[in-house]
Amino acid sequence: MLIKLKNKSAAAVLAIQNYVKEKGCDTRVFEGDTFDAIVVCGTDREHKVNAADITSLAESDIDKIMTTGYLLSSRAFKQEDTTFKVGDVTFGSDELVMMAGPCAIETYEQLDAVAKELSKCGVKVLRGGAFKPRTSPYSFQGLGIEGLKIARKVCDKYNMLFISELTDLRFLDAYQEYVDIIQTGARNSQNFELLKALGAIDTPVLFKKGFADSIDNFLCAADYIYSGGNKRVILCERGVMGLNQNHYRHNLDINSLLALKHLSHLPVCIDPSHACGRRDFIEPMCLAATALGVSSVLIEVHDNPPLSLCDAKQAFSLSDFKHLQKSLSVFTTATKSVDKD
Amino acid sequence: MLIKLKNKSAAAVLAIQNYVKEKGCDTRVFEGDTFDAIVVCGTDREHKVNAADITSLAESDIDKIMTTGYLLSSRAFKQEDTTFKVGDVTFGSDELVMMAGPCAIETYEQLDAVAKELSKCGVKVLRGGAFKPRTSPYSFQGLGIEGLKIARKVCDKYNMLFISELTDLRFLDAYQEYVDIIQTGARNSQNFELLKALGAIDTPVLFKKGFADSIDNFLCAADYIYSGGNKRVILCERGVMGLNQNHYRHNLDINSLLALKHLSHLPVCIDPSHACGRRDFIEPMCLAATALGVSSVLIEVHDNPPLSLCDAKQAFSLSDFKHLQKSLSVFTTATKSVDKD
Amino acid sequence: MLIKLKNKSAAAVLAIQNYVKEKGCDTRVFEGDTFDAIVVCGTDREHKVNAADITSLAESDIDKIMTTGYLLSSRAFKQEDTTFKVGDVTFGSDELVMMAGPCAIETYEQLDAVAKELSKCGVKVLRGGAFKPRTSPYSFQGLGIEGLKIARKVCDKYNMLFISELTDLRFLDAYQEYVDIIQTGARNSQNFELLKALGAIDTPVLFKKGFADSIDNFLCAADYIYSGGNKRVILCERGVMGLNQNHYRHNLDINSLLALKHLSHLPVCIDPSHACGRRDFIEPMCLAATALGVSSVLIEVHDNPPLSLCDAKQAFSLSDFKHLQKSLSVFTTATKSVDKD
Amino acid sequence: MLIKLKNKSAAAVLAIQNYVKEKGCDTRVFEGDTFDAIVVCGTDREHKVNAADITSLAESDIDKIMTTGYLLSSRAFKQEDTTFKVGDVTFGSDELVMMAGPCAIETYEQLDAVAKELSKCGVKVLRGGAFKPRTSPYSFQGLGIEGLKIARKVCDKYNMLFISELTDLRFLDAYQEYVDIIQTGARNSQNFELLKALGAIDTPVLFKKGFADSIDNFLCAADYIYSGGNKRVILCERGVMGLNQNHYRHNLDINSLLALKHLSHLPVCIDPSHACGRRDFIEPMCLAATALGVSSVLIEVHDNPPLSLCDAKQAFSLSDFKHLQKSLSVFTTATKSVDKD
Repeated sequence: MLIKLKNKSAAAVLAIQNYVKEKGCDTRVFEGDTFDAIVVCGTDREHKVNAADITSLAESDIDKIMTTGYLLSSRAFKQEDTTFKVGDVTFGSDELVMMAGPCAIETYEQLDAVAKELSKCGVKVLRGGAFKPRTSPYSFQGLGIEGLKIARKVCDKYNMLFISELTDLRFLDAYQEYVDIIQTGARNSQNFELLKALGAIDTPVLFKKGFADSIDNFLCAADYIYSGGNKRVILCERGVMGLNQNHYRHNLDINSLLALKHLSHLPVCIDPSHACGRRDFIEPMCLAATALGVSSVLIEVHDNPPLSLCDAKQAFSLSDFKHLQKSLSVFTTATKSVDKD
Repeated sequence: MLIKLKNKSAAAVLAIQNYVKEKGCDTRVFEGDTFDAIVVCGTDREHKVNAADITSLAESDIDKIMTTGYLLSSRAFKQEDTTFKVGDVTFGSDELVMMAGPCAIETYEQLDAVAKELSKCGVKVLRGGAFKPRTSPYSFQGLGIEGLKIARKVCDKYNMLFISELTDLRFLDAYQEYVDIIQTGARNSQNFELLKALGAIDTPVLFKKGFADSIDNFLCAADYIYSGGNKRVILCERGVMGLNQNHYRHNLDINSLLALKHLSHLPVCIDPSHACGRRDFIEPMCLAATALGVSSVLIEVHDNPPLSLCDAKQAFSLSDFKHLQKSLSVFTTATKSVDKD
Repeated sequence: MLIKLKNKSAAAVLAIQNYVKEKGCDTRVFEGDTFDAIVVCGTDREHKVNAADITSLAESDIDKIMTTGYLLSSRAFKQEDTTFKVGDVTFGSDELVMMAGPCAIETYEQLDAVAKELSKCGVKVLRGGAFKPRTSPYSFQGLGIEGLKIARKVCDKYNMLFISELTDLRFLDAYQEYVDIIQTGARNSQNFELLKALGAIDTPVLFKKGFADSIDNFLCAADYIYSGGNKRVILCERGVMGLNQNHYRHNLDINSLLALKHLSHLPVCIDPSHACGRRDFIEPMCLAATALGVSSVLIEVHDNPPLSLCDAKQAFSLSDFKHLQKSLSVFTTATKSVDKD
Repeated sequence: MLIKLKNKSAAAVLAIQNYVKEKGCDTRVFEGDTFDAIVVCGTDREHKVNAADITSLAESDIDKIMTTGYLLSSRAFKQEDTTFKVGDVTFGSDELVMMAGPCAIETYEQLDAVAKELSKCGVKVLRGGAFKPRTSPYSFQGLGIEGLKIARKVCDKYNMLFISELTDLRFLDAYQEYVDIIQTGARNSQNFELLKALGAIDTPVLFKKGFADSIDNFLCAADYIYSGGNKRVILCERGVMGLNQNHYRHNLDINSLLALKHLSHLPVCIDPSHACGRRDFIEPMCLAATALGVSSVLIEVHDNPPLSLCDAKQAFSLSDFKHLQKSLSVFTTATKSVDKD
């Protein structure tokens, strides 16, 4: 249950908090631009905590009591773009954040080689999968915790942040130890237990939209994280189901990017590598997304793409990446000129 | 990695097992109708265990070494329908298994009331959600472990089996203690860590297809469970994304049912309640699916549908359920006559 | 523009008719169960004929003035199932109408051979394509008008009705001469000029839903035909886009069948041959659709399927068809028992 | 049937032409970059003209005989981008062509007002619908031929080209008289009789992809036009079915744009107005598409959007349009810099 107030009223907040506490449940208060919102925590909330009671406590200050939909990730709650720092890197600002690295961490040597070059290019966030969600159980599943340790060592060496996908909560402690930004995959976009747990920690989350999630469902799911107290959430578009899988894996949906920027204050990212599954689509997709004002991109870069153990067809080489950076710098300048109009 | 042999060769199996053990990994052997298959376990399998080595060990007996796709859940591996017993109930046979109960377990009294009536109708499997995956974080999330305990008590009282959805592995021990059949939800159909863990236990699994899963991906995911050693898997169709969500929530896809029966030896189930989200669709969908040879159905029944805390619009009343049973018994007879032609 | 009255008022109808005639446009009046509806004909209707004027003429009798949506094909307009006769055949009744024949008319001999056998089986409607909408321009396109003439001869010989797809209005005269029921294809489901022209003639229309049409759009399109004055419209489901085209071409959507029966009074048909594109799906799909109360089916039957010039993989043989008939007769009996409950 | 030669052989072409002529059919020869292709015309081609005969005539020069798929619109047939002129305007070049105007032609005054301003902005192609394909039969259907005449007058006054959608072949003569570029709508993307007829005339065609057409089917359909002899075809992306119709009508699919540019030599266009159905999406979509190298855009501009009789929510105002032009000019410069890298 979420209680949306009409305005900012410390008295109403207090009255509701006291009431909920009496019933044996907890609250979490979120300060919006023009009103506050109170989330009632606890599983059996519907039974003890009563909407009619709450209404009677602060009727003139309550806008509505929500048991469906989303609020905290929306612009209704917070008009201005959310920006936040992770280390030196700012998400949600005008500065495009490039996150790059191999699909899967394979060996220390491989990751070190890629990180060294990316670091020289100015990349500050290294990506690399340790637990790989593969369609077939017989495919390479990643190095697991060992992979995280390798990546931590490499990132410390080059002073980079490390982003990696968490696939199950049993590994959460390790991720909190080794990873700077936790990524969730398209297949876990509605894994609500995972999202709740990520809401309860401090590590920032790059939250990928599922292949068949509507925007409304995606923002409901973002509220799962945000309402737990973790406000550092990056929304990531990585493609929707389409009719042309023989030509490209999924459709990177730039329409949903625009709509997300319109509906939500959270920073928006794209992952063109996984979306399209084609190396030659990556640069144009980055340019297009830059034109739309995306604030970060996640790109697979391998030191030797044909030897990649995973998703070889979509991996950029380091020289592809350098070309992309050059193109993007020209484009970013152009975007800024347009915005000033 | 999965090694598909061409035929049954104890010598080849042994040679491969020995080789893999030397490399520090384990194997699991599956006996097919006309050939065996060997799964190599362990995360870093691709590096130490080498396809070329294996081929050289038993070249004439190896059909292929698979690192993509599925095998164990397919008819290529096992031609005949798989049937298995859970308690007194047989899945995969000619006898239609009815699983029924409320969407969410709300109170002992509610569940007892439904179970008592369903039991009188001859229903032997009670469904009921304890952890509910809800689109909005502000909706009722279920009673959790407490719900499982309630259901266990009720099922023991009426001598019923209990089926319930597992949403996270942190609860697996409790499910093994209280639940007879573990259900996985559409949103977890590609949650591979969950599937791997379910492959490693003995409890049978009702495995639901996701809203946007292709049949091939669904069977790959079924192989995740089966290749772990748990062969009691029921494939469940619960609807795909469609164009008419204002009229019915998802499309129950009977085409995929037919294809699943064609491609896989595993028993097939439908969940028309969640698929369509409309009470009036449930009976005709059950009749249609019976005509196609489905061997079990999962139906939401509430003692007082309008008061249901969850999915009220789709819940059957007990009298709806009795009407369905009558209709199905006529139909099952008809289906059998047709089959004999 | 359509003026929906609240009730039956001859005075209101007359007043509106006179007003519209003065403005130089025509009206067409449709008698519903509990109210009448008046369609304003003519292309520039929005400019001369004015909603405010009409409202002032008969305010108390007007429910609403519609410039979006559908009405005439809905149950709101006519509660009872529409049934109608074409020759001896009744559509929309309890009696299942079987329409069968080859995908494409190839030669007189071929069509005569199929018709002779189908006629012996009691089939009263022969299908056969003369203008084939083929994905590739290099595929066989049908015999054209020559094909229609062949079919007419054959149908007269066996006292059958002839149904065939019209793909362009330039051929409308020929279809009115040679064809008993005009079929429109999925690709023309939103070809509104075609639908308007079919609304202006007397020949009954089997109207197929497009691969990606919502039910609401489909019923709007049905209103294009019905509002022109042609009330003998059969709604046909022939599959929607799906995720498993490597296994079956489209998803026959039985959910939409149920919804169409719920929303519309018009008879409902299925075409499992084109929907699924697999011979082995046809019989189970017919059984399933019968369970749902579909009143007619359209099936491709070829005297020698492997030699079919078009869609060979989905063509039934005559012996397949006989098997289907037997199964359906058992099922129809079963369906009727269920309905009486 | 299409005969794809392996190389350029005048002798083989002649031999095949003679053979086909003897059989009573015609041929049309298309000169590709490195080989020629021969289309056999006539409806009963499969019966008289025999693939085996043709093969025996010129075996060493024949690559394959196609009765499925597409060839002429592909890069396999013609590697270089096709560019062509319509009046002063060049399609397919580096110069972005802006086509703009109201959704529907409403009155002479309205169209004149828009055209005057657009002409001042340098727009050389005026769009405007005369026959509007509307979902509901009760919506405004356009002015018909009268609308075409109005537009012709206006275009002549401002020296603009006129583009308008043809919905039925009964109006083809009028379109050839009044229209400079014939547009086909998404709903007619598989209306093969329409496409065949457009292949037989000289007027250039802007050919829109359907909401649910795969790229392969779209290019097959483009071959319907091209193989008739009309080589001035512009491929237009105008959105695919998506999951977020409550936020934007269709998904403008920039992935398919990239793939079309990769697969086909024909010029590529976007229609962001109809795709998204939201005014605020139009400028960013144009910028994104420019980044991908699209060579023309089709935009709805109304002199007074809120009063538009049709699709008011998506219509640009003239000042929106001027803003877009400014932004695009900055971007086009940026795109060119990138290309030079």
